[in-house]
Amino acid sequence: MSSGSYDRTSFKGLTFHDAVSGFQSGQDTPRAYLERCLAAIAERDGVVRAFVVLNEAGARAAADAATARYKAGRALSAIDGMPIGIKDLIETIDMPTQMGCGAFTGNFPKRDSIMVRALRDAGAVIIGKTVTAVLGMAHPGPTTNHFDPQSTPGRSSSGSAAAVAANMIPAAIGTQVGGSIIRPASYCGNIALKPTQGAINRGERQSLSQSTAGVHANSFADMWAVAIEIAKRAGGDPGAPGLFGPASAPAPAKPARLIVMETEGWADLDAASLAAFEALLDRLRAAGVEIWRRADHPLIEGFERALAHAKAITADICAFEQRAGLQHLAETAADRVSPRLFTRLQHGTKVDLETYRARLLERDELRRRLAALGPLADGLIAPSSPGPAPIWLGDQPGQPPVPRPTGDISFNAGTSALGCPAVNVPLLAVAGMPLGVQIIGQWHEDARATAIAAWVAGVA
Amino acid sequence: MSSGSYDRTSFKGLTFHDAVSGFQSGQDTPRAYLERCLAAIAERDGVVRAFVVLNEAGARAAADAATARYKAGRALSAIDGMPIGIKDLIETIDMPTQMGCGAFTGNFPKRDSIMVRALRDAGAVIIGKTVTAVLGMAHPGPTTNHFDPQSTPGRSSSGSAAAVAANMIPAAIGTQVGGSIIRPASYCGNIALKPTQGAINRGERQSLSQSTAGVHANSFADMWAVAIEIAKRAGGDPGAPGLFGPASAPAPAKPARLIVMETEGWADLDAASLAAFEALLDRLRAAGVEIWRRADHPLIEGFERALAHAKAITADICAFEQRAGLQHLAETAADRVSPRLFTRLQHGTKVDLETYRARLLERDELRRRLAALGPLADGLIAPSSPGPAPIWLGDQPGQPPVPRPTGDISFNAGTSALGCPAVNVPLLAVAGMPLGVQIIGQWHEDARATAIAAWVAGVA
Repeated sequence: MSSGSYDRTSFKGLTFHDAVSGFQSGQDTPRAYLERCLAAIAERDGVVRAFVVLNEAGARAAADAATARYKAGRALSAIDGMPIGIKDLIETIDMPTQMGCGAFTGNFPKRDSIMVRALRDAGAVIIGKTVTAVLGMAHPGPTTNHFDPQSTPGRSSSGSAAAVAANMIPAAIGTQVGGSIIRPASYCGNIALKPTQGAINRGERQSLSQSTAGVHANSFADMWAVAIEIAKRAGGDPGAPGLFGPASAPAPAKPARLIVMETEGWADLDAASLAAFEALLDRLRAAGVEIWRRADHPLIEGFERALAHAKAITADICAFEQRAGLQHLAETAADRVSPRLFTRLQHGTKVDLETYRARLLERDELRRRLAALGPLADGLIAPSSPGPAPIWLGDQPGQPPVPRPTGDISFNAGTSALGCPAVNVPLLAVAGMPLGVQIIGQWHEDARATAIAAWVAGVA
Repeated sequence: MSSGSYDRTSFKGLTFHDAVSGFQSGQDTPRAYLERCLAAIAERDGVVRAFVVLNEAGARAAADAATARYKAGRALSAIDGMPIGIKDLIETIDMPTQMGCGAFTGNFPKRDSIMVRALRDAGAVIIGKTVTAVLGMAHPGPTTNHFDPQSTPGRSSSGSAAAVAANMIPAAIGTQVGGSIIRPASYCGNIALKPTQGAINRGERQSLSQSTAGVHANSFADMWAVAIEIAKRAGGDPGAPGLFGPASAPAPAKPARLIVMETEGWADLDAASLAAFEALLDRLRAAGVEIWRRADHPLIEGFERALAHAKAITADICAFEQRAGLQHLAETAADRVSPRLFTRLQHGTKVDLETYRARLLERDELRRRLAALGPLADGLIAPSSPGPAPIWLGDQPGQPPVPRPTGDISFNAGTSALGCPAVNVPLLAVAGMPLGVQIIGQWHEDARATAIAAWVAGVA
């Protein structure tokens, strides 16, 4: 167990929404805000290593343009002038997209992913690319956890989560296939949204049927503003209706009842984390929220039983969908990818079309079982990871790679496979490190889950 | 009206499946088969202009490898050694992918789209890239109709359809968003499959929610073999179960009842084509097939009424999904794209997210209305185009571009929006040019639609 410096009551995250009145009055400017971010990066990124590359000149030009717009009373959106980091899986017109993988060193497609373009159109300042695990998969990058440099920031949106935690930027884009937004957010104390499947247009990254793009931030206002400003302009994935919800963060809303979602992660939860989560449930009950668990309704019990296969479902579906791309890399760039990739590829070659079809049906069943819980409660609640960030000091020479250097996806594979929205709230602290709690909603109820999360954050 | 040279009873298309026994006995070889194709290309492609680029050396090497496998009794699949053309929207590791668009001149990503990789893994000989309309959209390429060089081969899989019609190759890959497999196949006399949405993995081309990849051929055996050999190896789109069906073409199956699907194209049908289609229906009735029309059942009438909006639904959905990509091109390569692209872009900027959402719901309603017809009949039948290929001699300098130089999608927008399988059968001839009829099935019933199409082809 790590022993870090996080104190949830004293931690004050860098936010943007509360700086806007200063931009409007002229007491502050987006350019000055950006310079504070750049100074924080200069000060802290030597240890945190959240960024792969910065475009300082481009960011300054964008911040100056935003400054001029506020001066003229013509801000483009609630995120005009907001410095944002982009996970290095996502294409940017002004910076390379190297995906944490030697096979993509120098890869520079010179175009913006549709979500990046939407951010720019909303006035956001694209400050840099954040570290991802190799190809967004198993092998972690160099990023450390801001609250304890020996601990992992999580996978694979590690740079985005850590940059926000270290108050270098107010928001960053992450992506999740198995657990890569919510787990890093849990480990790093972010407020974060993994939206409904397809709610934010993934642009060129459509190859995995359960990947989503989402937002890491330090406030609900910033998290929601980034998500909705993208969705307004870029829509959702092709064929998906995109993110639904208000133009600014929904007001906190008290749930009448929440369902505890144990998932297959329940058995992995360490004692201190379990105790902290149960104490949180007590506080919610004390505030008048009814808490239902699997014993309270047969539909919940059935849902949990189905969910016990979520990791295997996720693993098989992803392995099948990734196998052609990984095969290509193995054939053309074997010396420039990680050994963990080959483990993944080997798995992929074992998943045949009939197995994939069966897994898709199982995933569909999970989703129908979630929908069946809709009338029973306002949302679901679960820990966001099986404990705080584990210590990881890197693979040891001569030793086989540690299987899960960034922790386990056991609390995240469920929501990933379900395709439903999950909002991480940094509600707990265990051994001086953050531990997040996720509020989970029905498909397309991202705004409702956010409203409940905001209420829970205010109470608990 | 064109006056071409097509006679459906005497036309003998180049097929592959019937050459295999010669490969097995040693009387023929895939290399010799390829050389015959290359000779046909050399002879005819100066007029037909179906190919953008050939890889003769690569094709010869692949054909030699196939020859060796047959000699050793180790053919990889039913398409081992089959020369195949690939529509130039789809990436190939050994040839550029220029998409018929000046903005992509020299574009050479050096990787195979997953379907091309699957073809190679099955032993197919990737002979060249076939002409597409600009970016697969409105502006046609230089390809002419084999049966009348003044007539269009259709859009946008024009090169694939024409190359198969001209007996230069036995099969080619096409793609359809609005009508780009079935209409060219109708104009060119191909047997062709536009499969269930997502049934053949589109690889890197996931940006349009109703695009599909399919097959042009001169026989049901070849058409089905190409489709199923891809699907076996590459599966369907991410999250889709992929093409279902037997390992070789399903046996012809007589339908008890077919429903005439009029679509909004019915009013566009010229008198000769209408008469030819009605005569076909008479022949089917004479063979014992019951024919139902919109007046015969309220569910059919309701289906037709919903389908009357299919072109508008398709146009709005595609415009919204394409707008970011087109915007990028307009900003970075305006001088290297066609004027018709800008018309499309203007449409896209008028379709907002709420309109897109409404259109998705309308499309979903169409699909539910099709499913409701499932118990009523074995399949649906319709002309594949509003007549034979129109004459088009190119835009005239100083004149505005002709709106639909390759004919109208009014018989194809329906099946495209429905996402269901459609099989083109070259059943009719009007004014010396082919006119196809499509057999339409329920989602995932590609094999059943193929079996019915094969039976209809044998009878009609």
